[in-house]
Amino acid sequence: MINVGIIGAGRIGQVHAKSILTGVSNARILAIADPYMKPAVADWAESVGIEGIYQDYRKILEDPRIDAVLICASTNLHAQLSLEAIAAGKHIFCEKPIDQSIERIEEVKAALLASPKKLVYQVGFNRRYDHNYRAMRKAVEEGRIGEVQYVRVSSRDPEPPPAEYAAVSGGIFMDMMIHDLDMVRYLSGQEVVELYAQGACLIDPAIGEAGDVDTATVTLKLSNGALATIDGSRKAVYGYDQRGEVFGSKGCVTSSNDSESNIVLSTVDGVTSEKPLWFFLERYMGSYQAEIREFINCIEKGTEPWVGIEDGLVSIKLALACAKSLKNNRPVRIDEI
Amino acid sequence: MINVGIIGAGRIGQVHAKSILTGVSNARILAIADPYMKPAVADWAESVGIEGIYQDYRKILEDPRIDAVLICASTNLHAQLSLEAIAAGKHIFCEKPIDQSIERIEEVKAALLASPKKLVYQVGFNRRYDHNYRAMRKAVEEGRIGEVQYVRVSSRDPEPPPAEYAAVSGGIFMDMMIHDLDMVRYLSGQEVVELYAQGACLIDPAIGEAGDVDTATVTLKLSNGALATIDGSRKAVYGYDQRGEVFGSKGCVTSSNDSESNIVLSTVDGVTSEKPLWFFLERYMGSYQAEIREFINCIEKGTEPWVGIEDGLVSIKLALACAKSLKNNRPVRIDEI
Amino acid sequence: MINVGIIGAGRIGQVHAKSILTGVSNARILAIADPYMKPAVADWAESVGIEGIYQDYRKILEDPRIDAVLICASTNLHAQLSLEAIAAGKHIFCEKPIDQSIERIEEVKAALLASPKKLVYQVGFNRRYDHNYRAMRKAVEEGRIGEVQYVRVSSRDPEPPPAEYAAVSGGIFMDMMIHDLDMVRYLSGQEVVELYAQGACLIDPAIGEAGDVDTATVTLKLSNGALATIDGSRKAVYGYDQRGEVFGSKGCVTSSNDSESNIVLSTVDGVTSEKPLWFFLERYMGSYQAEIREFINCIEKGTEPWVGIEDGLVSIKLALACAKSLKNNRPVRIDEI
Amino acid sequence: MINVGIIGAGRIGQVHAKSILTGVSNARILAIADPYMKPAVADWAESVGIEGIYQDYRKILEDPRIDAVLICASTNLHAQLSLEAIAAGKHIFCEKPIDQSIERIEEVKAALLASPKKLVYQVGFNRRYDHNYRAMRKAVEEGRIGEVQYVRVSSRDPEPPPAEYAAVSGGIFMDMMIHDLDMVRYLSGQEVVELYAQGACLIDPAIGEAGDVDTATVTLKLSNGALATIDGSRKAVYGYDQRGEVFGSKGCVTSSNDSESNIVLSTVDGVTSEKPLWFFLERYMGSYQAEIREFINCIEKGTEPWVGIEDGLVSIKLALACAKSLKNNRPVRIDEI
Repeated sequence: MINVGIIGAGRIGQVHAKSILTGVSNARILAIADPYMKPAVADWAESVGIEGIYQDYRKILEDPRIDAVLICASTNLHAQLSLEAIAAGKHIFCEKPIDQSIERIEEVKAALLASPKKLVYQVGFNRRYDHNYRAMRKAVEEGRIGEVQYVRVSSRDPEPPPAEYAAVSGGIFMDMMIHDLDMVRYLSGQEVVELYAQGACLIDPAIGEAGDVDTATVTLKLSNGALATIDGSRKAVYGYDQRGEVFGSKGCVTSSNDSESNIVLSTVDGVTSEKPLWFFLERYMGSYQAEIREFINCIEKGTEPWVGIEDGLVSIKLALACAKSLKNNRPVRIDEI
Repeated sequence: MINVGIIGAGRIGQVHAKSILTGVSNARILAIADPYMKPAVADWAESVGIEGIYQDYRKILEDPRIDAVLICASTNLHAQLSLEAIAAGKHIFCEKPIDQSIERIEEVKAALLASPKKLVYQVGFNRRYDHNYRAMRKAVEEGRIGEVQYVRVSSRDPEPPPAEYAAVSGGIFMDMMIHDLDMVRYLSGQEVVELYAQGACLIDPAIGEAGDVDTATVTLKLSNGALATIDGSRKAVYGYDQRGEVFGSKGCVTSSNDSESNIVLSTVDGVTSEKPLWFFLERYMGSYQAEIREFINCIEKGTEPWVGIEDGLVSIKLALACAKSLKNNRPVRIDEI
Repeated sequence: MINVGIIGAGRIGQVHAKSILTGVSNARILAIADPYMKPAVADWAESVGIEGIYQDYRKILEDPRIDAVLICASTNLHAQLSLEAIAAGKHIFCEKPIDQSIERIEEVKAALLASPKKLVYQVGFNRRYDHNYRAMRKAVEEGRIGEVQYVRVSSRDPEPPPAEYAAVSGGIFMDMMIHDLDMVRYLSGQEVVELYAQGACLIDPAIGEAGDVDTATVTLKLSNGALATIDGSRKAVYGYDQRGEVFGSKGCVTSSNDSESNIVLSTVDGVTSEKPLWFFLERYMGSYQAEIREFINCIEKGTEPWVGIEDGLVSIKLALACAKSLKNNRPVRIDEI
Repeated sequence: MINVGIIGAGRIGQVHAKSILTGVSNARILAIADPYMKPAVADWAESVGIEGIYQDYRKILEDPRIDAVLICASTNLHAQLSLEAIAAGKHIFCEKPIDQSIERIEEVKAALLASPKKLVYQVGFNRRYDHNYRAMRKAVEEGRIGEVQYVRVSSRDPEPPPAEYAAVSGGIFMDMMIHDLDMVRYLSGQEVVELYAQGACLIDPAIGEAGDVDTATVTLKLSNGALATIDGSRKAVYGYDQRGEVFGSKGCVTSSNDSESNIVLSTVDGVTSEKPLWFFLERYMGSYQAEIREFINCIEKGTEPWVGIEDGLVSIKLALACAKSLKNNRPVRIDEI
């Protein structure tokens, strides 16, 4: 039984807490901390038997019974909390991105390598644990499509964030398409060598005024010579659109959207299926539980997670390269970053 | 918080226990009883904090803290346990079928009506809570397809039971197609007036020697004049095949199978999707949790469950009518039963 | 080059004429005859180079250059025209049904067997030549689904015929579901031993007043022990619904509807595909050309058509058995007819 | 009745001839010319009643009865033949590309504008007449998806051309992806402002040695600010893969592949559909007939074709811009070309 502390009791912290409570039988939440914890959340935490309900996360780090922490605080604290948790000898599950600065992530990485205790450090790229993407990856790994020649990721949110959020989010590549950049690496099993990003502000002018785009594409060259494209949008009115494709010398594997049911209604108006699940909490709920389950298993078994600090680091480089490419309207090599 | 006792710790008893533990936040399992409880199950029950682990179910009925029981014992005990639980003033969730005898079910019904305390009595027709069937039903209720004119239910197990089980199961209609008979009523919102059953033994001769069939169809006339057909098989090599269709004056709604992922692989051999989920535990797991959640909510709110004792009774009549029709090779009116 | 005469210049006669003109390169239409030929049709026939445009079909039968006739006159003339064409030594493609009376068909069959010249006699069960049904049949023949255990045919017209037509049509089984009865034989490769038909008048009361039903199901037992069901309706508001399924010991093969395009539109209202093609002329146009192509090839090569007089005869027996079953509300053996 | 002459009796010339013979009732082929006409082709032409079978195309241009010519000769002759046909006052259907040189196309355009007789000049971008692409275009035109924000075209051949062909083809953008470039304009109703092309040689090294690529992507900026991507490959082992997508402010429309039938086979190995139709002659046959039908109708009615000389010119500019972008690894504005 692995004892866990959760730092940050906002939406994603609660998601992980519920995942453990309802489906990770070899973990137990001993404590949850948030300086601004809402009373309703504290009440809920108490009702499900969480013993320590703190404002100060240091109480978690100081508790010798706690084996692992889930860092679910705001992004600007991820690196600092990671460093402190490493110093405290805790295994770490850190929400993405670790930081928007490569240097800060390198610091965390160095601390991790220097830790006398071998620590599991997993980054919250939950989509790697999604049933559809895992099945695609498995098909690629098993050689079902031969040598990878092209990857496509289509990624559309159902609604844009408030423009004020866009301003602090680090931009569409850092905030949203970082998942898709990670998906290209995950699905292909290849590294990115160079990329070219394009963008436009077509949905909400306020996003443009905040210096960001809401519609973007990225073209990528991979280490085996394959090509990839990502297309992203902040607003698909029909719901969260998440599809992928990997094409190779022996075939092609695609994934499509999930919906609440598979019923099909035929009337004079057409033959209608359900829309995709609305957004990431609906669409990827299964993957949130699966990633925490793997985190706990890695601790128990001493294995490496599918998505470690190096993946967290590379994804930031890719997002920064996208931003640079868009700004300069030219292809950017990753080794420039 | 509703306190629950589980009578019967076999496969389905454990399924319900896990449903409550992982997703029914307003219920708590106080006890579980089984005269033949396996040590591993008892250990598991203890590890998840179930206080009472008994051989004798009467300890559950006698515990005044317990509000509700789940009857998950073998079929021949369902009616007797129901009667005792009613006498003890417990709300009851009873696995289907309540009994293979109409008289016994009538006895339970009479006891229920005579109970001084208003008790919730829900029958385990879990498919009514399945995401696809619920969505179909909702479309029908909302008038999306107009007046119902035809219903079809296709139902195929991935593998037949052992022939010795077939012998005691009550036959394919009582054991397996009872769910499909209930689905016709559920999806159409109509009662069955008459039916005609056909059957054949095409899969396992031992099933035929045991006096049963392994392949069957039923044609039904419904109370609004609509027609329905059910086709059932004990063995679809590609997995559990569960599809439905309701056709009416304004359109048609269909449901198809669920699978582990929606990836599609295109190669020289064809364009291949995943097979359906293997069997009922994979396919209907969500519905098991949903039915228990409704049971608990009905107790809390004093509402009627979607599937009560009358539904349990009617389904048995339909199964018996099927058997009679098959035996005599003629249509049988339900009011003959 | 096979020289053809067409008897009957109504809708289906014109369909066959166009099929030959646009896609049967080894046939030539020498003449077309119809006592009530519309001037526009005569003009069209002349414009495409048809030499003989007659009121009297006997001019076709008397023309020694003509090898083959297509009998496209009204149903009640099919048998008589067949007999005369046989006497004239012409190969015959006869629209279905040959006749509504078994005795008349037997007469034609006897004449055919007695003909000194071996004549091709093909019946217009065009669906056997449809790309989807052929592919299903091929899969069954190749053993892809193993031993056939169950067949389903779903067949819905987009709109009912006028009630006055229903009165003379021979009823839903003879007029419409005869195709589906033939499909069960074609798809399964089995003969029908017994059947049970149910029906209801749910769409147009005038059809009921004319003594017919507009919604029907048939359950069939096949010669290898397999079961089958057909469900038919005179009115599916979303268009011509034509689907099939064959299930067996090694798997299952299904076919679905065709539509004008495969585009899918996702909006706030749902994910919408096109409706099925409207009716038989749209849906089965390819099969009309294919059946004529086979007819001509059979004449050239001396081979047997896929669908000969025996198939025409059996289909009538099945339709009559359905009508008898519905009338008496009991299963009917085909050897009773 | 429009009288047509066909210049070039190779594969595509024969396709157009058959289209007219089997489905364009208001056109008649008076002559076909090819200096290297195969005897079998000449025999066939005679058998279907084509009066003039020539080596010298000038006999067609000189025949005053001929209203229109189809230019189906090799690409390097398209411009010259166009100029001569304009001079002869013939309406022209010209296979794509008109020429690989913009200057030559401008010459044809100038001649066309200078012609005293108003001539129809249609270019052979047949995909605009395909049932799926037309339906997508229609949905976009009708505003079903709102303002266009992103377009995707996926285009994969089933097998690469011989490397020697690649060398003279003008490269993958000019030879193959020119269709996809035209599709972006057609589906979006927008002009291309700038593009960025990437490419790799992953399939056949001989193609790389010939200076070409066999795998490519193009990112495009459109005149309304929208983005687009094209992904192309010379070899999809599962067949001709032709899919599109247009995404906008109110929704998304996609098209998928066509196949020979829609049957689905479920076995222990999975749930398998048919592969896409093999290559362009199978997949786009309907569009070849539709484009010729429109050409003839434009002549009859004096209307403009959907795809005129300007479209032919722009597509060449786009292909040249792709080649330049790939060579220089930078985005290229179309007004640079």
